[in-house]
Amino acid sequence: MSTIFSKIIAGEIPCHKIAENEQFLAFLDVMPLVEGHVLVVPKEETDYIFDLAPDQLADLMKFAQSVAPAIRKAIPCKRIGVAVIGLEVPHAHVHLVPMTTANDLNFTQAKLQVSQESLAKTAELIRSFL
Amino acid sequence: MSTIFSKIIAGEIPCHKIAENEQFLAFLDVMPLVEGHVLVVPKEETDYIFDLAPDQLADLMKFAQSVAPAIRKAIPCKRIGVAVIGLEVPHAHVHLVPMTTANDLNFTQAKLQVSQESLAKTAELIRSFL
Repeated sequence: MSTIFSKIIAGEIPCHKIAENEQFLAFLDVMPLVEGHVLVVPKEETDYIFDLAPDQLADLMKFAQSVAPAIRKAIPCKRIGVAVIGLEVPHAHVHLVPMTTANDLNFTQAKLQVSQESLAKTAELIRSFL
Repeated sequence: MSTIFSKIIAGEIPCHKIAENEQFLAFLDVMPLVEGHVLVVPKEETDYIFDLAPDQLADLMKFAQSVAPAIRKAIPCKRIGVAVIGLEVPHAHVHLVPMTTANDLNFTQAKLQVSQESLAKTAELIRSFL
C-alpha cells in the first residue's frame, strides 16, 4: 500500500519540504496544530514506529534532532514537542511541534486552516535556520 | 538542581520500575493519562530532549523501543504512543502511553488517580512481558 507520505516522498504529491537525506524527509504538516508543525518520516514505509529497526528509529530521531533547532528559531515557542500517534496514516511519522503549552500537542483540538502561501513562507523561514 | 526524576534514579524516591540499564530508567507515571503510562528517562540529568547528545537520544529511543512491546502486551490498546512535552519537570523524559484514541495522549486532560497497589500490579504485569 502506498500511503500519502510515500506519495509525498516519491514527489507525486507536493510538500513544503524542510530537510531530507537518503533515509528521511521532514516537511510541514498541512493541517498543523500550530504554525511550524513538522512531520518527520522514514522514506521506507513502515506503519508502527516501534516496528522500525532499532538503528532506523535511532537515525530517525537524530534526523528530527537536526531539524528541531531550526523550527525553534523560526517559530516563537518554549521548546519543540515530540509526538507519535499513528492512528491515522499507516506510515510512521514523528510530529515536531513548537510548544508553548501542553495544549499545543493536543491532537484532539481542531487543526489550523493555513494557506499554501503561508505554509511556503513558514517552510522557507525554517529552512533559513538550517 | 536535582529533579524528582534524579531522586527516583538515585533511589531517594520509590518508583514502580519497569526496566533499567546503565544509562536509562523506565517507570510508571504515578499520575497516568491511562493505565500503563510509562516514563523513560536518561539517568544523566538534561532538561531539553534535543540537548541530549545525538547518540544518547538514539539510545534513549532504542531503550524505549525495548520496553514498548511489553506495555502493549500488558494493556489493551491499539499501539504505544510517544510524547515529549517537557514543560514541567526539567529532566528529559519520554512518555510511552497505551493508546486507543488520540485523546489518550492529550496532556491537558485530568490525570488518573491510581492507588500504589494498582500501580504495583500494573508494573508487575508489564515486567512479566519483558
